[in-house]
Amino acid sequence: MRTGEEFRKGLAKMKTNIYINGKLCDRTDPIQEGAVNVMAATFDYAHDPGFKDIGVATSHLSGERINRFTHIHRSQEDLFNKQKMTRLYSQELGGCVARCMGTDATNALSVVTHEVDQKYGTNYNENFLKWLRRVQDEDIDCVCGQTDVKGNRPWRPHQQQDPSLYVRVIEKKSDGIVVEGAKAHNSFSSCADEDIILPTRHLTDADKDWAVAFSIPADCEGVTLINAAFSPPKRKHFDAPYAKLGNTHSITVFDKAFIPWERVFMCGETEFAGKLALLFALYHRHSYTGCKAALSEIMMGATALAAEYNGIANAQHVRHKLADMISIVELIYASGLAAAVNCTVADSGTYIPDTNYCNVGRMLAGESIYEEYMDLAAIAGGLSATLPPEADFMNEKTGPYLNRYIMRNPEISAENQQRAFRLFQDMMSSHWGGHKLIDALHGGGSPVIEKIGIYRDFNLEHSKNIVKRLAGIEQDGNTKELNRLSHNFL
Amino acid sequence: MRTGEEFRKGLAKMKTNIYINGKLCDRTDPIQEGAVNVMAATFDYAHDPGFKDIGVATSHLSGERINRFTHIHRSQEDLFNKQKMTRLYSQELGGCVARCMGTDATNALSVVTHEVDQKYGTNYNENFLKWLRRVQDEDIDCVCGQTDVKGNRPWRPHQQQDPSLYVRVIEKKSDGIVVEGAKAHNSFSSCADEDIILPTRHLTDADKDWAVAFSIPADCEGVTLINAAFSPPKRKHFDAPYAKLGNTHSITVFDKAFIPWERVFMCGETEFAGKLALLFALYHRHSYTGCKAALSEIMMGATALAAEYNGIANAQHVRHKLADMISIVELIYASGLAAAVNCTVADSGTYIPDTNYCNVGRMLAGESIYEEYMDLAAIAGGLSATLPPEADFMNEKTGPYLNRYIMRNPEISAENQQRAFRLFQDMMSSHWGGHKLIDALHGGGSPVIEKIGIYRDFNLEHSKNIVKRLAGIEQDGNTKELNRLSHNFL
Amino acid sequence: MRTGEEFRKGLAKMKTNIYINGKLCDRTDPIQEGAVNVMAATFDYAHDPGFKDIGVATSHLSGERINRFTHIHRSQEDLFNKQKMTRLYSQELGGCVARCMGTDATNALSVVTHEVDQKYGTNYNENFLKWLRRVQDEDIDCVCGQTDVKGNRPWRPHQQQDPSLYVRVIEKKSDGIVVEGAKAHNSFSSCADEDIILPTRHLTDADKDWAVAFSIPADCEGVTLINAAFSPPKRKHFDAPYAKLGNTHSITVFDKAFIPWERVFMCGETEFAGKLALLFALYHRHSYTGCKAALSEIMMGATALAAEYNGIANAQHVRHKLADMISIVELIYASGLAAAVNCTVADSGTYIPDTNYCNVGRMLAGESIYEEYMDLAAIAGGLSATLPPEADFMNEKTGPYLNRYIMRNPEISAENQQRAFRLFQDMMSSHWGGHKLIDALHGGGSPVIEKIGIYRDFNLEHSKNIVKRLAGIEQDGNTKELNRLSHNFL
Amino acid sequence: MRTGEEFRKGLAKMKTNIYINGKLCDRTDPIQEGAVNVMAATFDYAHDPGFKDIGVATSHLSGERINRFTHIHRSQEDLFNKQKMTRLYSQELGGCVARCMGTDATNALSVVTHEVDQKYGTNYNENFLKWLRRVQDEDIDCVCGQTDVKGNRPWRPHQQQDPSLYVRVIEKKSDGIVVEGAKAHNSFSSCADEDIILPTRHLTDADKDWAVAFSIPADCEGVTLINAAFSPPKRKHFDAPYAKLGNTHSITVFDKAFIPWERVFMCGETEFAGKLALLFALYHRHSYTGCKAALSEIMMGATALAAEYNGIANAQHVRHKLADMISIVELIYASGLAAAVNCTVADSGTYIPDTNYCNVGRMLAGESIYEEYMDLAAIAGGLSATLPPEADFMNEKTGPYLNRYIMRNPEISAENQQRAFRLFQDMMSSHWGGHKLIDALHGGGSPVIEKIGIYRDFNLEHSKNIVKRLAGIEQDGNTKELNRLSHNFL
Repeated sequence: MRTGEEFRKGLAKMKTNIYINGKLCDRTDPIQEGAVNVMAATFDYAHDPGFKDIGVATSHLSGERINRFTHIHRSQEDLFNKQKMTRLYSQELGGCVARCMGTDATNALSVVTHEVDQKYGTNYNENFLKWLRRVQDEDIDCVCGQTDVKGNRPWRPHQQQDPSLYVRVIEKKSDGIVVEGAKAHNSFSSCADEDIILPTRHLTDADKDWAVAFSIPADCEGVTLINAAFSPPKRKHFDAPYAKLGNTHSITVFDKAFIPWERVFMCGETEFAGKLALLFALYHRHSYTGCKAALSEIMMGATALAAEYNGIANAQHVRHKLADMISIVELIYASGLAAAVNCTVADSGTYIPDTNYCNVGRMLAGESIYEEYMDLAAIAGGLSATLPPEADFMNEKTGPYLNRYIMRNPEISAENQQRAFRLFQDMMSSHWGGHKLIDALHGGGSPVIEKIGIYRDFNLEHSKNIVKRLAGIEQDGNTKELNRLSHNFL
Repeated sequence: MRTGEEFRKGLAKMKTNIYINGKLCDRTDPIQEGAVNVMAATFDYAHDPGFKDIGVATSHLSGERINRFTHIHRSQEDLFNKQKMTRLYSQELGGCVARCMGTDATNALSVVTHEVDQKYGTNYNENFLKWLRRVQDEDIDCVCGQTDVKGNRPWRPHQQQDPSLYVRVIEKKSDGIVVEGAKAHNSFSSCADEDIILPTRHLTDADKDWAVAFSIPADCEGVTLINAAFSPPKRKHFDAPYAKLGNTHSITVFDKAFIPWERVFMCGETEFAGKLALLFALYHRHSYTGCKAALSEIMMGATALAAEYNGIANAQHVRHKLADMISIVELIYASGLAAAVNCTVADSGTYIPDTNYCNVGRMLAGESIYEEYMDLAAIAGGLSATLPPEADFMNEKTGPYLNRYIMRNPEISAENQQRAFRLFQDMMSSHWGGHKLIDALHGGGSPVIEKIGIYRDFNLEHSKNIVKRLAGIEQDGNTKELNRLSHNFL
Repeated sequence: MRTGEEFRKGLAKMKTNIYINGKLCDRTDPIQEGAVNVMAATFDYAHDPGFKDIGVATSHLSGERINRFTHIHRSQEDLFNKQKMTRLYSQELGGCVARCMGTDATNALSVVTHEVDQKYGTNYNENFLKWLRRVQDEDIDCVCGQTDVKGNRPWRPHQQQDPSLYVRVIEKKSDGIVVEGAKAHNSFSSCADEDIILPTRHLTDADKDWAVAFSIPADCEGVTLINAAFSPPKRKHFDAPYAKLGNTHSITVFDKAFIPWERVFMCGETEFAGKLALLFALYHRHSYTGCKAALSEIMMGATALAAEYNGIANAQHVRHKLADMISIVELIYASGLAAAVNCTVADSGTYIPDTNYCNVGRMLAGESIYEEYMDLAAIAGGLSATLPPEADFMNEKTGPYLNRYIMRNPEISAENQQRAFRLFQDMMSSHWGGHKLIDALHGGGSPVIEKIGIYRDFNLEHSKNIVKRLAGIEQDGNTKELNRLSHNFL
Repeated sequence: MRTGEEFRKGLAKMKTNIYINGKLCDRTDPIQEGAVNVMAATFDYAHDPGFKDIGVATSHLSGERINRFTHIHRSQEDLFNKQKMTRLYSQELGGCVARCMGTDATNALSVVTHEVDQKYGTNYNENFLKWLRRVQDEDIDCVCGQTDVKGNRPWRPHQQQDPSLYVRVIEKKSDGIVVEGAKAHNSFSSCADEDIILPTRHLTDADKDWAVAFSIPADCEGVTLINAAFSPPKRKHFDAPYAKLGNTHSITVFDKAFIPWERVFMCGETEFAGKLALLFALYHRHSYTGCKAALSEIMMGATALAAEYNGIANAQHVRHKLADMISIVELIYASGLAAAVNCTVADSGTYIPDTNYCNVGRMLAGESIYEEYMDLAAIAGGLSATLPPEADFMNEKTGPYLNRYIMRNPEISAENQQRAFRLFQDMMSSHWGGHKLIDALHGGGSPVIEKIGIYRDFNLEHSKNIVKRLAGIEQDGNTKELNRLSHNFL
C-alpha cells in the first residue's frame, strides 16, 4: 500500500494534459492542492492506527493486504466496512473522499465483464482481473468518467446531430479501439492515476458504437482534461483543516484516443451497457449512504455549534430542528445498512447491495441538502454571510473592534467565535459553498434519477395484489402465497 | 400454541367488565368482531404454512415451540424475524396486528426486572419469568396499558390536583398492592387475556407511588374498561377482507384494584420507571418499522391501483408520486433493519434494537401518514368520498345507472371499479378512516416524542467535536481518537 | 329575499327524484337535515343584522335589494364583498356555505353567453338574463353540476366507448334539446331549486354534442339524483352548532331529459366550452379563497384551543405551529384579495377576478388541508380518536370515571374538555371528518388542476426574457420595454 | 431629482472611513462597483421613460416631484406603487434594489416621531420633517442600520457583559448625544449618503440608554465601516447585465460618535423603541413582497430557460415544478397587495400596510428561497457547478472542444448555452451565489422572526371563540357579534 507522499510523487511525474482557467497546468499546480490532499488522505488513512484497519482489506486475487479502495466486495461484511470507512473518512476530511468512484466502477466491472463473457465468450473479465491485480498491487487510484455531455436530453446517442455527444468507438483495430467524445463532471480525474470510462445509460441496438467501457492512464495520448478546481478560501492567519479540502471536476475530451484491447471491458454489447451503468450507480449510491451521512452529520454538528455559540442551544425550536437533522443522518445511513442486509451475490462472487435501499437513501440525501444548508444558515444567522475577512481581524484599527463586537456566548472566546463563523462562511457563503450545494444535489445521481429507479425496481404488482386481495378483487393464481412470500425483504 | 378458535372461546368465558356506548357488554359483542378477528389471526397465522413458521419461535425458558408474540428476543435474528412477521401479518390483515404490544412490554420487563433485582435484591425477575412461562405455555395474549390520562400536561404526577391522574399505588399489603387511576388508549384491551401496566414517563423521587408495573387478567376485580370499538363499514353485498378488520381502545379504570405481589414487576423504584417506559416504547417503535412499512405499502399499492383503474398509471407525476411513497416504505423498514444491525444485549440476555434508528423510523412513519392519505385521495379522486353506498348499486333503478357511469379504464369491470373505490372509501372516507389517521399519527408515540428522544439520545458532542476540529478550534483530550472511534454505528 | 323557512317550505313541495342509500326519498328526509340547514342559513343570514347586509346586493337588472348569492359582480367592491361574505358565513357555519356554486356558475354564464352571442348572433344571453331576473326576484337557490363522470381519463368525450360518459345532447327539437349522461359530485343538488349544468373541460370540434350548458329545476323529468348525505355525528346530550352542519353530493343522471330552449345557454359552440368551464372554476376558486380561509382559521383555532385545554399553549413548538397555520389562512385570503385588485371587466360588464391569484390561493388551500388536520391531531392528542361516546358520559358508573379522568388544564371544566374534544373528534375522527378531508382536497378543483392552470396562464416567456436579458442573451424587439411593462400586476 | 452620475460624484467626495479586507478604501474603490451600480440605478430609473414615472412621487412637504424612495406614503396608491416599483426595479437589476431601507426607515420615523411628540411634547417630528425636506430636495440616498451585534442572544441590552453590544447613548450634551456600539449587516452603507440608525428590539425601562434613533452622514466623525462587498464574478469576454450587480454590508462601529440634537429622532423613550423597530421591519417586509417576488420570478424564469435549453421543457415534472415556483411568486406579491388593501392611517397621515399580511409574505419568501435554488440546480443540472471559466472557452485548443460539447437543444447556439449556464453558475455556484442564499433568508428579518410576529399579532382569541361557539362551549358577552364582526379583514 502506498502512502500519500508516494501518491503525490507519482502525480508529479505524469504528463501535462490538464487545462485550468485557460492554461495548460501540471497536476501539482497549487490550485489542485485541496483535491490532492483529499486523494492523498485515502492512502495515508490506510496506515493510520486511528482508523484501525477499516481501510485495509485482503485481496481475493493475491491474498495480500490491500487498500480497501482497490478491493472487490466478497462478503456482506465488506459492504458494511466500505460504508463505515466512507463515513469515517468523510467526517475526518470534512467532505467527499474522492476515491470511492474507482472502487464502485471496479466492483461493477467485476460483475458485468463476467456476465458478458458468459454470454458471448469474450475475455473482458480476464483482461479486467489482470488489470485489477496491478491496481491492487501498485495501489493505483482510479476515478470514473460516466456522464456523457449528452446533447439534447430527450434524444438517444444515435439520434444526436453530433454523434460524439456521447463517447463512442470510431474505429476498431487489431490492437485496440479509437474513441471520440467527452465525459462531463469527471470528478478528481486531475489527481487520479487512471480514469475508468463507463456508459451512462441504457442503450438500444442502434447505439452499438456507444456501448464501450475501458480504463486509461489519466494522462494518455488523445485525452484532454478541461479542469475546474474548487477549494474553501485559503487561510492566512486562522488555519483550519477544513480549508485544506478541495475537489476537481473535468470535462474529459477524447480526441481520437487509442485504447489497447487489454484495457477494453465492453465494446458493442449494448444490452449490458445499461446494466453496467446502473451497477456503477448502485455501488456509488451505496457509497453515498456513507459520505452523505457524514456530510449531514457535519451540517448538523455545525448547526449545534452555532446554537451553542449564539447562546440559544436550549431553545425548543433549535432542539427540534437538530432532531430533524439527526433523523436525516440516521435514515441515510440506515438505508445503506439495509442495502447490505439485503445484498445478493453475483455469479462472479461479488457482493451487490440492494438497489432500492440505496436509491431511497441517496434520494433522501439529495433532497435534504438544501434544507440542511438552510437550517445551518437560519440558526447561525447573517454573520455567516457578512463576517469580514481575516485581514480585518488583523488590522490594528478594526481588529479590536471586531473582537469586541463578535462576542456572544461569553464563555466562547472571540477567536473561537470567529473560527466557527468562518467555517460556516466557508461551508456556505463562498465559491466552494455554492458549488458544493449543487455537487451534493447531483453527485452520484440526481434525486429525479433515483425516483425513476425506485419506481422501476419496486415490485409494484405485488403491492397492488395485496390491495386487490383486501378489496375482494379476484386474482389469478395463488395470490395468498404471492402476498405472503414473494417479497423478500430481509 | 392455541388456534384463533381456542382464543375466541377463551374470550367468551371472561367476566363482563366492558362498557361500550353506555352499556355493559360481553367480549363477544358483535361490535368487537373486527378487533377479535385481528387478534385471532395472530394465533392462526402461527399454524399457517403460508407464513412458514415466521410466527413461531423456540422458548428460551422451556425449549418448546411457542407463538413468537410470547417470545423474548435472544438474538439479532429474532429482531429481524419479529420485524418481518409484523410486516407480513399487517399486510395480510390490512392494518395493525394488535398483539405486538404484549410482546414489546414483555421484552422490556425481561430487561428491567433483571436490572432492578441486581440493584435492590428484589425478586421481580423471578416473578416475571414464572409469569412469562405460563404466558408462553398457555399462549396467552397480552396487551399493554401505558399512557396515563395525565391531567395537566406540564405537571408531574405528584403535582396534579388529583393524584390519580397517573395510575398509582394507594396501599401496600402483605399479599399485594392496591392501585387507582386510569390508562388511556389501551388498545385491544377488550380482546386480551392480560393487560400489562407500565409507567408512562420518567419519574422523580417525589413520584414514588407512581413507579408501578404489573400484569392483570383483563377482567379482574376493580378494573373497568370503557371501550371504543372501530371497524370499516360492514358489507352486505360486496364482501372484502378489509371489512373484517377492526380495533378497540379503552380507558381502563383501576378503582382500588388489588394486584398480588407475584404479578407486580416494579413498585417504587422510581429511577427505573423512565427506563421501563422508554424500553417498552423502543420495542414498540421497532414493531412499528414492520407494521407501518406494511401500512405505507398498502397506501402506496392502493394509489397505484387507483392510477391503473383511472387510466393514468403512466402519467409522470403519478410515477414520481409512487416513487416517493415507495421511498417512505423502504426508509421505515430500513430503519428497523438498521436498529437490529446495531442491537445490544442486556444483562438478562435480551436483545435490544438501537434506539435512534427506531425513533427515526417511527418519526418518519408518523410524519408521512397524512401525506400518504393525501396522495391516495389525490390520485383516486373525489369518488373515494362520494361513492354511493352498496344499496344504490343493488337498487333496480339506480344500479344500472351506477354500473354504467362508474366505468373508466374499460379493461376493469364495473364491479371491480366499485370494489376498489369502496376500499378507498373505507380506508379514508369513513369513521374508521378518520380514526385511523389519528391512530397512525399517535400510536406507538407521536412524532414530537420521537423528536425529543432523538435529540436526547444522539451523541451531539461527538458531532460538534468533528466540526470543531474542522474549524481549527482547540479541544481537550485525544480528539482524533474521539472523532474516529467513539461513534459506533454498525 | 326569502327566509330560510320559506326555502324549506319550497323544498318540501318538490317532486321526489332522489335516491339515498337505495331508497327513493323526499328532500325533507332527516338524513338531509344538515345540508338543508346550511342552505337555509344563506337565506337567513341576509336578514340577520349581525352580518350588516354583507349578504345583500342591488340587482343591476331590477335595482332591487337581492340576496348576494344571486348577484352578478359589477364592481371590484362586489368581488371583495363576495369573498368576505363567504368567509364570514363559513366560519359561522363551521364549513362549506353551499350556495356559492350557483353564484359562480351564474357569473360565468353572464360573461360567456354574451360572448357567444357576439360571435354567433345567438340569443343565449337574453335567455340567461330573463332566467336570472326570475332567480333574483324569487330568490332561487342554484347549484352547479360540472364534473362529468369522465370514463377513461386520458380520452376525450368523443373517444369514450360509451359516449354518454360526458353529458351530451342526443337530440335537438324545435322547442328544446334532449340530453343524456351523468354529473358526479353534484354538491347540495338535493337541496337546490335549480341545477346549472356546465361543460367540464376544453372541447375540440369532434366534441360538438358535448358543448352544452343549461339550467333545470332539480326535480325535473328525466333527472335522477343518486345522493349521498353527510353530517357530523348527531348529538343527544351535548348539542353543538357544529353538529347541525351537513352536505350532500349526488351523481345526477340525465336519462333522455328534455330541456326547453329558453333554459339552454350553450349548445354546440365548442370553442366556448373550455372558457365557460374555466370561468366557472375561476369564480369558484375565488369563492374558495373565502371559505377555505375560514376553514383553515377553524382548524387553527381548534388547534389553539386544544393547546390551551391541554395546558401546553406556551410551548414554543405550539406557537410556531400556530404561526404556520395562521400564515396559511392569511395567504389564502390574500390571494383572493389580490385577484380582486387585479380584476378585469368582461364585455358584459361582469367583473372577473385574476386567474392566477385564484389558482395559487386554491392550490395552497388544497395542498395544506392534510397538514392542518395533522397539526390539530398532533396537538390535541389521541383523545380526539378515542374519546368515548356521549352515552358513556351519561352512564352512572362510567360517567363519573370519565369526568374525573378527562381533567387536564384545571381551569377548564370536564364538560368543556369533553365538548372541545368531541368537536375535534367530529371534525376528524368520524365519517364526516374522513369525508371532509377529501372534499377539501378536491372540491373546487384538485391541486393538480390548479398546477396545470398556473403553468398555462402565467406569462412564462416574459419571465424568461427577464432572465435572458440578465444573461446577455440577445433578444428580438424592444426587450427593455417588454421587461418593464408587459406584466401588469396591479 | 439627481441622476446616477450626480450620485456617483457625490460619493467620490465623501471622507474615507471604510475598511475593506484590512485596508482603508475610497467609496469609489473598484470592489464597490457592483453595489454603486445598483444604488445609481435608483436615481437613473426615476428619469427613465421605460418606467413611466413609477419611481416618481409628489412630496407632501414641498409639492415637488421627488424620487419615490424619499417619499412618505400618503395613500393606498402609494403603497401599491412602492411595491410595484420595487418589483420592476429588482427584476431589471437582477436583485436587491438597495435604497428601500432608507424609504422604510423614513416612513417608520414619520409615524413614531409624531407619536412620541404627542405623548412627551418633544420635537422629534419637527426635526425629522426638516431633515426629510432636505433629503427630498437634495435627493439624498439613505440606508438603515438596525441590527445590533447583540452579544449573547437571550440577554437584554442592559444584561450584556459589555453594555455596548447594543448601540447606546454614553453621554448627553447640550448640543447633542455621544453614542457607542456597532450595527451589523448595515447593507449598502458604504454607498449611502446617510445612515439612519434605529433600535433593533423591544426595550424595557432598564434599557433607557439604548432607546436611540438618529441619522448621520455615512462618513461622519467617530464612525467606521468595516465593509464586505459582494458581486457576481467579473466577466472578460461574455459580458452580461447580471455581472454588474453587487451589494455591500458593513459592521458600522460608533466610537464616541457625536450626533447633534437636530439629527436625533428618539432618545430614551423606551416604550416606543419596539414600535419603531417593528414599524421599520413592517415597511421593509412590505418592500420584500416586491423584491422577493422579483427574485422568485427570476429563479423561476431561469429554471424555465434551463429546461428549454436542456430540451426538457415539456416534461410533466418540469411543468409542475414551474407551476409551484410561479405560485410562490404570486403568493408573495399577493400578500403585499393584501397588506395595502388592509392598510391603516397613522395620526401623522402616513399609510401603514397590514402587519400580518406582510409577515406571511416575507416568511413564505424566506422559507422558499432554498427550494427555489434547488429547483434551478435540479433542472439546470451539474453544469451550473462545473462549467469551465470563460478563459477555457477562449483558449484555442479547449475553446472548440467546449463549444462542440456544450451543445444540447440544437436550436440554441453554443454561445447562448454558455451564457445561460454562466448566469446559473453566477447565481448559484459562486461566492456571490452562496452569499445571496443567506442574504435572502435573513435579509429583512429571518422567517423565525416573522413566525413570532405572526403569532403575536393575530387575534387568536377571536379564532378560538369561533371554535368554542361551534363546540357549544358557553362564552361571555356578545359572542355572535364578536364572531361576525371583530375581525376586519378587508
